[in-house]
Amino acid sequence: MSDKTTIRHYDLLPEPTLRRLPWYLAYLSTLRNASVEYISTTRIAEALDVDPSQIAKDLSFLGIRGKTRIGYQVDALESALRDYLGFDRHHNAIMMGAGSLGAALISDSGLNRYGLNIVAGIDINPDIIGSSINGVKIYGIDDASRLIKDLNIIIGIIAVPVESAQEVADTLANAGVKAIWNFTPSRIRVKEGVVISNTSIYSHLAVMYNRLSTLNPTQEQ
Amino acid sequence: MSDKTTIRHYDLLPEPTLRRLPWYLAYLSTLRNASVEYISTTRIAEALDVDPSQIAKDLSFLGIRGKTRIGYQVDALESALRDYLGFDRHHNAIMMGAGSLGAALISDSGLNRYGLNIVAGIDINPDIIGSSINGVKIYGIDDASRLIKDLNIIIGIIAVPVESAQEVADTLANAGVKAIWNFTPSRIRVKEGVVISNTSIYSHLAVMYNRLSTLNPTQEQ
Repeated sequence: MSDKTTIRHYDLLPEPTLRRLPWYLAYLSTLRNASVEYISTTRIAEALDVDPSQIAKDLSFLGIRGKTRIGYQVDALESALRDYLGFDRHHNAIMMGAGSLGAALISDSGLNRYGLNIVAGIDINPDIIGSSINGVKIYGIDDASRLIKDLNIIIGIIAVPVESAQEVADTLANAGVKAIWNFTPSRIRVKEGVVISNTSIYSHLAVMYNRLSTLNPTQEQ
Repeated sequence: MSDKTTIRHYDLLPEPTLRRLPWYLAYLSTLRNASVEYISTTRIAEALDVDPSQIAKDLSFLGIRGKTRIGYQVDALESALRDYLGFDRHHNAIMMGAGSLGAALISDSGLNRYGLNIVAGIDINPDIIGSSINGVKIYGIDDASRLIKDLNIIIGIIAVPVESAQEVADTLANAGVKAIWNFTPSRIRVKEGVVISNTSIYSHLAVMYNRLSTLNPTQEQ
């Protein structure tokens, strides 16, 4: 633990920081497109409505400090952020459920640009087993454990009906995935040591509907 | 404000409660499939690892109370939850950006089952303007404001490249949408009175990668 570089890289960042870093990255790509070469925390702060000292603190996790009066070099900061966030490394993943949402995610080339490499899909529907979506082959559930081992898969993505979410999560955890990305509204539980990330887009809808009905009662009722 | 039903319906629920309600709903659909008729908070609590008193409190927002020793009637609680969460009402939406992610979301029939009715898509690519995805017609950007008014669209979904996210958000807000669902990693800002909901799936990836590298340093480096 004396090697500072190593410590920095594996630091468990506070989640709010981790959620702000992609904002900075998105803003930087806008600047690069506009051929801006240097950027100050003050200007990032204005654009994103984040406190400048918070930005400096967040970026210091990357070991990068801006130059006085000049600020950060846009290209260098952008690639440091991409590297730090893991977007430049490949993470092999398996898609559990190749129905509507699963197929949609397999088709989203954006995930690949952010380091997610979906190498296989699993479904129970005999009509789609054996077919390919966006170059990704769909297998039956019995093949899942073997594929996870053979293809060095570390992430399992769950896009199955809610009723099957926990069972599928257990299958993934037992087969040795290190992280589960859950797109169902189910709360899933797995043994310690497996990272769970929830992106329940339908739950986000519920939050949005509630905010809408509060703001615009006449629209909603 | 003397009508209790109305007050309850438009209460701004705490977000943690709003995020748990879909868990209960997902669990209830599992039970219904298994023909379970009644359920206690204790059993829900065990299944979801949520404190029973918290569950009772969350459900009391819906004005539903369980019967002593019997608990909640599964069907009734499920439909009360769906209704309360807004999943049974139609919310007209426009998809801004019909590229990889936008097209994927238009194709996801799950959103429709949760009350989101995507009635039009917008893109700048002349090759797809005029085409249809999953029955949803794609228009050019100049048609956006007119469509929002004509089709009574209250939600704008943003799935454009990060560089254009803010500009598209401004277009939506000016055209009168009441809520913006932002799928880009950009932080967008709009005038007060417009609900913003962020589902930055790429940011969720960053959080997951960081947790992975912390848990499994040898896997990741």
